[in-house]
Amino acid sequence: MTKPMLQVALDTKDLPSALKVASQVSDVVDVVEAGTILIYEEGLKAVRSLRAIAPDKIVLADTKTADAGGSVGAECRKAGADWMTCINAATIPTMKSAQEQIEVQVELYGNWTEELAKQWLDAGIDQVVYHQSRDAKFAGQTWGEKDLNEVKKLIDMGFKVSVTGGVKPEILKLFKGVDVYTFIAGRAIHGADDPNAAALEFKNEINRIWK
Amino acid sequence: MTKPMLQVALDTKDLPSALKVASQVSDVVDVVEAGTILIYEEGLKAVRSLRAIAPDKIVLADTKTADAGGSVGAECRKAGADWMTCINAATIPTMKSAQEQIEVQVELYGNWTEELAKQWLDAGIDQVVYHQSRDAKFAGQTWGEKDLNEVKKLIDMGFKVSVTGGVKPEILKLFKGVDVYTFIAGRAIHGADDPNAAALEFKNEINRIWK
Repeated sequence: MTKPMLQVALDTKDLPSALKVASQVSDVVDVVEAGTILIYEEGLKAVRSLRAIAPDKIVLADTKTADAGGSVGAECRKAGADWMTCINAATIPTMKSAQEQIEVQVELYGNWTEELAKQWLDAGIDQVVYHQSRDAKFAGQTWGEKDLNEVKKLIDMGFKVSVTGGVKPEILKLFKGVDVYTFIAGRAIHGADDPNAAALEFKNEINRIWK
Repeated sequence: MTKPMLQVALDTKDLPSALKVASQVSDVVDVVEAGTILIYEEGLKAVRSLRAIAPDKIVLADTKTADAGGSVGAECRKAGADWMTCINAATIPTMKSAQEQIEVQVELYGNWTEELAKQWLDAGIDQVVYHQSRDAKFAGQTWGEKDLNEVKKLIDMGFKVSVTGGVKPEILKLFKGVDVYTFIAGRAIHGADDPNAAALEFKNEINRIWK
């Protein structure tokens, strides 16, 4: 079993805030994410800047692309991103043209089916991002059996599954024995008084559970 | 019958190129569009800049949003946009939360149904962007009967329909008698030797056909 990676989601509204956190945690995390709103606010300069200060980390552009996949993918790649996201509602041709430019993660929001997921695999896309179900989130619940089963199903299908939504160090043990690709933490890291310590807490828990 | 408006799609890759064309045509066009790639490259600074140089025009942020509609909508509005786009594949809650912040246009790409379109109307969204069918485009054809019928159907349903894809002055007459809301031209204006003259050619043709 591979050890899950740790991703910091820099979903701040301005570049200096994102860069501050990135510089504090880039020695701990494996993946540095330029958040959707950050990219809208600052453009792909956000990706270029993160690539500049985290040269040996994976940089993700969370564009949530639904159209013009080839153009957006090419621009993200040129800006220094390793991965970009497409929304699950994007068409297969959009995802395929993005995947030709850069490694694509499909973000699972709203409705999707196993049949559709097979089409992503056929298109050469093997990364998905699983969000904690909104129902659970709105009900104030943590990760439950249903979410875990969905994650396991996707892994069994052959996907590398990243996990996001209410991810805190204390929930990681729920995933013990599950081959999670990456845990994505946003506010739990960038909203902490000490982002470096917060990231280390995640990393230590990952190292403890996935030996 | 209302006279169709003219929109320039500034789908350039950098802000100076977009601003140059905008300043050349803003006295002629009704709507100034910050293109998807331009926004990715430059961030919402692109929208702020277009708003600054075209204070009395409609400014559209072509974000093609599929998620986080409320946040993206709020940021676009604050940047000075009047309208933003959502992709037709976005969920109704995404569109609704965007529409609470700013006027939304649904971009019709790939599969959509009349039943779905009714849900957009129910969500308070009455603008759609109709793209020339890709099949027709790839076959090197111009706007045909099928496209015209789709546009008419959407207008009959109660939508304000903007029309894009291979829009040139000589095709406008095909739409005679059709209550098109806006004609969107990109390269036909910004790629012209004289963008102002190109925009005027569109405008004169609109004035000639829709008296």
